Amino acid sequence: MPATVTLQFGPEYQEADVGQIIHLAKEEPLRLDSGAEFSDFPMAFQTYGSLNADKSNAILLCHGLTGDQYAATPHPVTGKPGWWEHLIGPNKALDTNRFFIISPNVLGGCMGTLGPKHINPSTNTPYNLDFPVITIGDMVRAQKLLTKSLEIDKLFCIIGGSMGGMLALEWAASHPDSMHAIAAIATSPRHTAQNIAFHEIGRQAIIADPQWQGGNYINEGSYPAAGLAVARMTAHVTYLSQEGLGQKFGRDLQDRSHVTYGFDADFQIESYLRYQGKSFVERFDPNSYLYITRAMDYFDIAAAHGGELRNAFKNTEASFCLISFSSDWLFPATEARQVVQALSSSAADVSFLEIASDKGHDAFLLEEPLFIEALTGFINRTSRKIGL
Amino acid sequence: MPATVTLQFGPEYQEADVGQIIHLAKEEPLRLDSGAEFSDFPMAFQTYGSLNADKSNAILLCHGLTGDQYAATPHPVTGKPGWWEHLIGPNKALDTNRFFIISPNVLGGCMGTLGPKHINPSTNTPYNLDFPVITIGDMVRAQKLLTKSLEIDKLFCIIGGSMGGMLALEWAASHPDSMHAIAAIATSPRHTAQNIAFHEIGRQAIIADPQWQGGNYINEGSYPAAGLAVARMTAHVTYLSQEGLGQKFGRDLQDRSHVTYGFDADFQIESYLRYQGKSFVERFDPNSYLYITRAMDYFDIAAAHGGELRNAFKNTEASFCLISFSSDWLFPATEARQVVQALSSSAADVSFLEIASDKGHDAFLLEEPLFIEALTGFINRTSRKIGL
Repeated sequence: MPATVTLQFGPEYQEADVGQIIHLAKEEPLRLDSGAEFSDFPMAFQTYGSLNADKSNAILLCHGLTGDQYAATPHPVTGKPGWWEHLIGPNKALDTNRFFIISPNVLGGCMGTLGPKHINPSTNTPYNLDFPVITIGDMVRAQKLLTKSLEIDKLFCIIGGSMGGMLALEWAASHPDSMHAIAAIATSPRHTAQNIAFHEIGRQAIIADPQWQGGNYINEGSYPAAGLAVARMTAHVTYLSQEGLGQKFGRDLQDRSHVTYGFDADFQIESYLRYQGKSFVERFDPNSYLYITRAMDYFDIAAAHGGELRNAFKNTEASFCLISFSSDWLFPATEARQVVQALSSSAADVSFLEIASDKGHDAFLLEEPLFIEALTGFINRTSRKIGL
Repeated sequence: MPATVTLQFGPEYQEADVGQIIHLAKEEPLRLDSGAEFSDFPMAFQTYGSLNADKSNAILLCHGLTGDQYAATPHPVTGKPGWWEHLIGPNKALDTNRFFIISPNVLGGCMGTLGPKHINPSTNTPYNLDFPVITIGDMVRAQKLLTKSLEIDKLFCIIGGSMGGMLALEWAASHPDSMHAIAAIATSPRHTAQNIAFHEIGRQAIIADPQWQGGNYINEGSYPAAGLAVARMTAHVTYLSQEGLGQKFGRDLQDRSHVTYGFDADFQIESYLRYQGKSFVERFDPNSYLYITRAMDYFDIAAAHGGELRNAFKNTEASFCLISFSSDWLFPATEARQVVQALSSSAADVSFLEIASDKGHDAFLLEEPLFIEALTGFINRTSRKIGL
């Protein structure tokens, strides 16, 4: 398991410490929902804390759309702290003195796990659009191979926010005996029409960029930075709330006292969005963005279980914690409540919290005290329950 | 006033009946907020009904961002009915048996009124980005020149939705004696950070398209269709509500029974958005889109009146009707209520209605019975009040 591999970051290639790399599906291939198969493929992951002797203290962490394995490790390109640095560590909510936390990069990602920029063994060139379209179910199957390789039969808990919450719910539906607890945060049991719409805009922005080159930008030595930046700007606005944007930026001007009567970033919100777009293209792969957004669009647990969400969870004995944020209009609490309703009618152990916040969907990545308390409480309650 | 002029529609040029064309600012130039000036410039407009002898029955109609003068006339490119066809005509809410309705294309527009694709007299080439950045105030000043040319001292009513509502409010603030009534629908006294954010995404999508050519696509014989389509798709999602999208499209597939595991428009919402983007580029000018979105971003009536919205309306004797739609998250009712509050504290005659609808911002363009009733009632009440 080499720790350092060469990755493409934006238009550049560089050596990066991706944590650990494990090769999965070596004996039999991973069969995807589309029918395609992957054999002997890499998955990159970070771990925090130590696995105990009976392998009962493992927490699987599932990242969001543009997240990665660097949950409590500085990002190798941006140098920024891990995305849940404030939640993971000794005596923190996910206490590394007690738990062994596994944080893999999802299938289709661009930080070491097999994705569209990897070499297709049957052509010896990057997959690009020959990479098969994957699903949230496929990502979970790949993660199941990882936990199997680590010889962990039953995870203590699976935790994820946003797309990560989808993975957690999919784990509960497809592997009901593989975990004691599920914490699904700022998430939904399906992608709504509005969710799909915003993803489609992002994809069309990338595809419209001539430098995307029909997906073959790696071979062509080009890079659709402008299109990917527009995709990121669009997504970013959906992560914030109207009220939060008003409070943070309002109509404040950027480094000027008067508007310029031009198309510069007169307003702080414009400057902020341009920065978000620009910095994203330096750390994320455009084709990965297409594939992962598509996986989310296809996600609909109820549809996969005869149209009844409760059917998805009828065999579960896990404890569930669902958390939503009041100003999250991308994954509103109404979506999470459908899961709570389905779990309740399946007599599952479920708690639900809608936390008042003006931070929108992004709240799950921020230091929201009520969120941290609730997650800590759930971890403590469920670990006590199983005598951990 | 020639009725037919040559206009660029998308990448094509064609002859179009733009209604009437009048040349304004022939004697003294129109001075813009930026300090730039326009002389002898064209404004295109349609009229419906007849002006009465004492010129007291005129209604000025103000269109939205991508609207035009074809309020009750089929559009020359799309062939679609006018955008308020259901509201304008004999015995309709805006009764052409009683009223003379003037529907101009705004300054900066692309349907006959002076805009960035017109010839700059000082260079004899299209203005492109040499066109000065205009404001909502400038659009109103230009409209005031129109009503002056038509020798109408006092309009019976000014009506507008969305950006058109901004124009109506700006008229009330800057020309308080020029109208008896104002109906401002689905609008706001300022553009919020979220509003600016979505406009900035649209502009960046256009600017990122290499065919935009630094704004010189007319000279270069190119056309940023892909960028403009992404801009339109983004805007279009903001015009619809989460619940409306769910009801209209949900996760329904487009002409197929299963997903394709690809990037085609598997979902109806994707197909719909692509169509919206594609049809828009055939009827709207990309640079006009930049300029008009910018004018909206700059709009902030309170800021222009010492930071106090009520100062903007302190001299008004007009009757106001503000209407919002419950699921409009782009111009939510909370924004309109600020105007109602300001008018109330100025002792103005103001009524406000928040209409329950799941149609989002678009509701103001649709046949919403409660909206039609409310507008009809307001027109009848205010016309009775002034003895019309």
